[in-house]
Amino acid sequence: MKAFVLEREWGQFHTPANLAKGISIEAAELLECFQWTDQGDKESVAHELADVLTYCLLLADKLGLEPEQIIREKLEISKEKYPVEKSRGRSDKYDRL
Amino acid sequence: MKAFVLEREWGQFHTPANLAKGISIEAAELLECFQWTDQGDKESVAHELADVLTYCLLLADKLGLEPEQIIREKLEISKEKYPVEKSRGRSDKYDRL
Amino acid sequence: MKAFVLEREWGQFHTPANLAKGISIEAAELLECFQWTDQGDKESVAHELADVLTYCLLLADKLGLEPEQIIREKLEISKEKYPVEKSRGRSDKYDRL
Amino acid sequence: MKAFVLEREWGQFHTPANLAKGISIEAAELLECFQWTDQGDKESVAHELADVLTYCLLLADKLGLEPEQIIREKLEISKEKYPVEKSRGRSDKYDRL
Repeated sequence: MKAFVLEREWGQFHTPANLAKGISIEAAELLECFQWTDQGDKESVAHELADVLTYCLLLADKLGLEPEQIIREKLEISKEKYPVEKSRGRSDKYDRL
Repeated sequence: MKAFVLEREWGQFHTPANLAKGISIEAAELLECFQWTDQGDKESVAHELADVLTYCLLLADKLGLEPEQIIREKLEISKEKYPVEKSRGRSDKYDRL
Repeated sequence: MKAFVLEREWGQFHTPANLAKGISIEAAELLECFQWTDQGDKESVAHELADVLTYCLLLADKLGLEPEQIIREKLEISKEKYPVEKSRGRSDKYDRL
Repeated sequence: MKAFVLEREWGQFHTPANLAKGISIEAAELLECFQWTDQGDKESVAHELADVLTYCLLLADKLGLEPEQIIREKLEISKEKYPVEKSRGRSDKYDRL
């Protein structure tokens, strides 16, 4: 992926703010697979999901963040915000539990 | 992550369509770190990026998609859409190259 | 606009949730005009902004909400959240003022 | 609304690109009302929809666009893209009709 960006000299466009925009834009294209249906076409979903992930990894790389580590750290925070006994079987936000 | 979801019995809410909505919502929270500035606070960015990635991984898991594989496949498609000689140093979309 | 939807028998797809998805999707297409530049092409911006507005009006109509009234009501709330003396010249969110 | 922005000296933050980001962010907050349910709370929906509309009107004003006019113009384009006889009762995108 880095070679792909490097060969095209696209690093100049990949500021953190632009990558964040890219993630939102690709996330909306993924959402479009489900706009009128709960059954998105699997191949289209795979492609759009790949785009979201790609921009996420480029942003993480840009900021020196390790994807697995930030996911683990956030999971610890979520465990505290959503204690099992309070949140079991409920989709409410933590401030409504 | 799967244990976290399982303990809270949240799998029932995690339809592909709902996860796709979640990805868009978290992507916007990430974008909010850059709403008025190009310099988002690194810790906030890390947390929001982790949320986007988490929902992406849950969606991939739900659909039986392998993140690394779909990223690689999409990269091959992008290589064809954006030949090095045409796209070098340009941020134009493929249909304008 | 209502005639346009009615003739095509699209009302059946326009649940509030689907219209909300539509607004997010069109908002991202608008954002795409500014993905790599602060100067979006004016005609493209006009078209995408019109799409966002159209879905907003369809959602308001669906829920029996009056656009001008909800904008005025929200403005009153924002006036209280962002007192002039505290928020002048600052882009901070109300909980950081 | 203009007085509200002027008093707070917020015009300096309201570049077209920043307003476009704002629209995407508020659209996602609206979508959040429907994240796990098709029945969003009406009052929350009204507030978030008002936020989307507010940023849309600020962007239109910034670019000298007349909301009603751009909606009408886009509607004409959509009428051509989606002929009644082809699109009646179908949610397909124009390139699949």
